[in-house]
Amino acid sequence: MLLAAMNPSDFNHWMQAHAERMESWLEAHIPLHTSFPGRLHEAMRYSALGGGKRMRPLLAYAAGAVTEAQIEDLDVVGGAVELIHAYSLVHDDMPCMDNDVLRRGRPTCHVAFGEATALLVGDSLQTLAFELLAKTALSVPPSKQLGMLHLLAEASGAEGMAGGQAIDLASVNTEIDLAMLENMHLRKTGALIRASILLGARCGPQDTPEIQEALDQFARAAGLAFQVIDDVLDTEADTATLGKTAGKDAADCKPTYVSLLGLESARALAHSLHSRALEAITPLGDKATKLAELADFIVERRH
Amino acid sequence: MLLAAMNPSDFNHWMQAHAERMESWLEAHIPLHTSFPGRLHEAMRYSALGGGKRMRPLLAYAAGAVTEAQIEDLDVVGGAVELIHAYSLVHDDMPCMDNDVLRRGRPTCHVAFGEATALLVGDSLQTLAFELLAKTALSVPPSKQLGMLHLLAEASGAEGMAGGQAIDLASVNTEIDLAMLENMHLRKTGALIRASILLGARCGPQDTPEIQEALDQFARAAGLAFQVIDDVLDTEADTATLGKTAGKDAADCKPTYVSLLGLESARALAHSLHSRALEAITPLGDKATKLAELADFIVERRH
Repeated sequence: MLLAAMNPSDFNHWMQAHAERMESWLEAHIPLHTSFPGRLHEAMRYSALGGGKRMRPLLAYAAGAVTEAQIEDLDVVGGAVELIHAYSLVHDDMPCMDNDVLRRGRPTCHVAFGEATALLVGDSLQTLAFELLAKTALSVPPSKQLGMLHLLAEASGAEGMAGGQAIDLASVNTEIDLAMLENMHLRKTGALIRASILLGARCGPQDTPEIQEALDQFARAAGLAFQVIDDVLDTEADTATLGKTAGKDAADCKPTYVSLLGLESARALAHSLHSRALEAITPLGDKATKLAELADFIVERRH
Repeated sequence: MLLAAMNPSDFNHWMQAHAERMESWLEAHIPLHTSFPGRLHEAMRYSALGGGKRMRPLLAYAAGAVTEAQIEDLDVVGGAVELIHAYSLVHDDMPCMDNDVLRRGRPTCHVAFGEATALLVGDSLQTLAFELLAKTALSVPPSKQLGMLHLLAEASGAEGMAGGQAIDLASVNTEIDLAMLENMHLRKTGALIRASILLGARCGPQDTPEIQEALDQFARAAGLAFQVIDDVLDTEADTATLGKTAGKDAADCKPTYVSLLGLESARALAHSLHSRALEAITPLGDKATKLAELADFIVERRH
């Protein structure tokens, strides 16, 4: 089934339908608690299922529409990225990292299952991402699929997301400038958002270097906008709306866009990044409608 | 260069030369502390370089000789397995798991660099394993390489190594029988030893289902023998010889082959598994000499 075959007029319906589709895919691909070792599987399902905006899979679905990808392929790349994201949240919440007790309105994994199990849950969710992306036959040639695994790994590891978290750790109680903050976020959240978009597009038969380049520009701007808005919401919102502890970055003395720029300038930066993201995909025409709508959603969301 | 071209008469020389070769490969493929983010890279190198028996890469080199694999391919699969092994040691040593302060005669990663960095080091070493196995062009077809990635992931995740660690966690202070202990070790250490051997063989042009089957039998027996001997050494040896804290399993009330069978029967079991391993590869002839010598080494080692 091609995504383009779906009704493009109702963005909220599209978003909900695709988030539910991703939930079902994850439910079907994370081992059941009835299979051995049950408690580990149960904790993996607890951590990866039943919540979250599924922003990264949605970006993969939307980018796949640009290159006319098959939705079954997009399930796999979106699901793999989401599993990496889920693993990072479990480890990030642990006492030695952010020490957070609430995630998606529920106790974090280490609170519900203990720290040792949470460590193994994160480890196993990461492995599962690579396992599923390696074992599922996509419609692209195997050599291209290997390249996609490489892209996902590069986005996740020491040069990407994990590296961004290392910079984040080092930035507590220190003065960092806007360039270093941007560098950190391009890795910490940006690399995986970029991977979702580029991998989604790579699934389709119409994928070209020009499209990858336009989407790369889009991803860079939209990913930063996502983070700037996160900082704004962390300042403004209350814990109930966010589903995670609000005001935590300030309490932890972590630099944010709001602490460096102030609330108004941070909001202005988000809108400028939003415009830059939309410009980058203008040449792609109607096929990029869902990506544009997701960029709108990213800057307008309340949680 | 074919492994078979090397002098087969001197096993110790072979072992040392190949362990050094693996060390150089890892040194070349883990990012330098001079590249950003430096502290994470430094802690990754600290944890993965400069020690260890390199048993898993040695098994990959030896299994590759059976199918006439190119040594450059074996570097990649042996290195990827070793990075998974290194990540598991870093996480396993953390306070919420085994809480061990000594590894390979040096302070463990979390003691030297802090818990948060150790968490990210383990995460990043795992990612790097998949990254290197995905991005390096092996001499096998890309579709076969994808299958090898799948095999490594399956051996590492919730059904393999991480699952074995979850069973291990659950077994503290409980009574488990020999079948459950075997199940745990087939996952916890056995799965990765099996992966080293099967992946090494898959690199070569002479790889066949019959060879994979014989090596699978060998791997199962040799992997368990390795673990039984580990338990024996943990009972007998002192900390200085082991390079890690001796007698730790007993102190932690963890079931071992020695606690279930007694020292003499555990030793007898190791020798019976050793014989079973050698029988499995007898049909493979001289090409399996290094594997047989490694099986000997596994049961005869003192640390």
